[in-house]
Amino acid sequence: MIQQVEITLPGFRRGYHLITRLIEENLHELPSTGLLHILVKHTSAGITINENADPSVRSDFEAFMNKMIPDNDPVYIHTDEGADDMPGHLKASIIGAELTIPITNHRLNLGTWQGIYFCEFRNYGGSRKIIATIMS
Amino acid sequence: MIQQVEITLPGFRRGYHLITRLIEENLHELPSTGLLHILVKHTSAGITINENADPSVRSDFEAFMNKMIPDNDPVYIHTDEGADDMPGHLKASIIGAELTIPITNHRLNLGTWQGIYFCEFRNYGGSRKIIATIMS
Amino acid sequence: MIQQVEITLPGFRRGYHLITRLIEENLHELPSTGLLHILVKHTSAGITINENADPSVRSDFEAFMNKMIPDNDPVYIHTDEGADDMPGHLKASIIGAELTIPITNHRLNLGTWQGIYFCEFRNYGGSRKIIATIMS
Repeated sequence: MIQQVEITLPGFRRGYHLITRLIEENLHELPSTGLLHILVKHTSAGITINENADPSVRSDFEAFMNKMIPDNDPVYIHTDEGADDMPGHLKASIIGAELTIPITNHRLNLGTWQGIYFCEFRNYGGSRKIIATIMS
Repeated sequence: MIQQVEITLPGFRRGYHLITRLIEENLHELPSTGLLHILVKHTSAGITINENADPSVRSDFEAFMNKMIPDNDPVYIHTDEGADDMPGHLKASIIGAELTIPITNHRLNLGTWQGIYFCEFRNYGGSRKIIATIMS
Repeated sequence: MIQQVEITLPGFRRGYHLITRLIEENLHELPSTGLLHILVKHTSAGITINENADPSVRSDFEAFMNKMIPDNDPVYIHTDEGADDMPGHLKASIIGAELTIPITNHRLNLGTWQGIYFCEFRNYGGSRKIIATIMS
């Protein structure tokens, strides 16, 4: 069986945001066993699984990723949409814009310390859309 | 229901190439709702979702990824297959060799600005094979 | 049809390890056509597809990823759990903690040179759990 839901995220500030609960609240009852797939429908935002406890992990992600993939790198030609646009595209493909999570006993089967991060790479990304697809 | 198709890509030059239409043309009619999974069957090529409009995004990808993961980095020991081989392996795992896209109303449910990039990391990669699997 | 198996990996040393055979041995007979999804249930380990032949590819991965995402980078605030913790979280999201592989004719449909790497980013990660889900 397949269920599919479009979820509209609020405008998040640039950075990494824990959205596990937000995702769960927007899904109907999960099947006993299956897979949940999530796509972010944008090219300067991402989604990943990482540590769900200490907020300093999320701020270190923002700091390190900005160092590894800087705004205003001299190689960028695509600069018309702002200094945060091309690094946002690069981060979207390096972190990824989609992921799949197993479902077991009607729950997301993540590790104890795992949560879902929504990654906003623009300074003012605004509201964002994701598509959740459940296969069972 | 499951459908599976092997698609042979033409030899692309080193760089990032928009293949959304090529993929769609090689698939039979898509189901009303489902998922499309794509695997690149090679270890120095990748697949990702990114901006489908301005070609300078794709050339900036090539320029920046080559700066972040250079040919001829002094740490490489695996150099027998050429200066573009080990960086190609690294890029394949950092960009990824597989992805999943939701299907809605018989179409790929990508954002307005999203397209599928085939990423050729070798100077002369030649023809490449991908496996498309549709679950519905 | 859906099958799901939890697999416990032995404690691997920090680095990149070929686990294709270990995964296959822990799965029941594969369906004729389908998808295998694998999630690593940890936030400082990853899973990816890469070259299955020359071990120097795996040691170059360890060397280059440590250069690109160093232990003890000065931007890290999250340092209480050790110098290998925050870089491990970053690598987990850059390499990824989950992937999907097509199944064709009762076998994983990987390229000739592709294998599954388990990526241990901690110095002493200990035993790790993964969830394998087969959809057919």
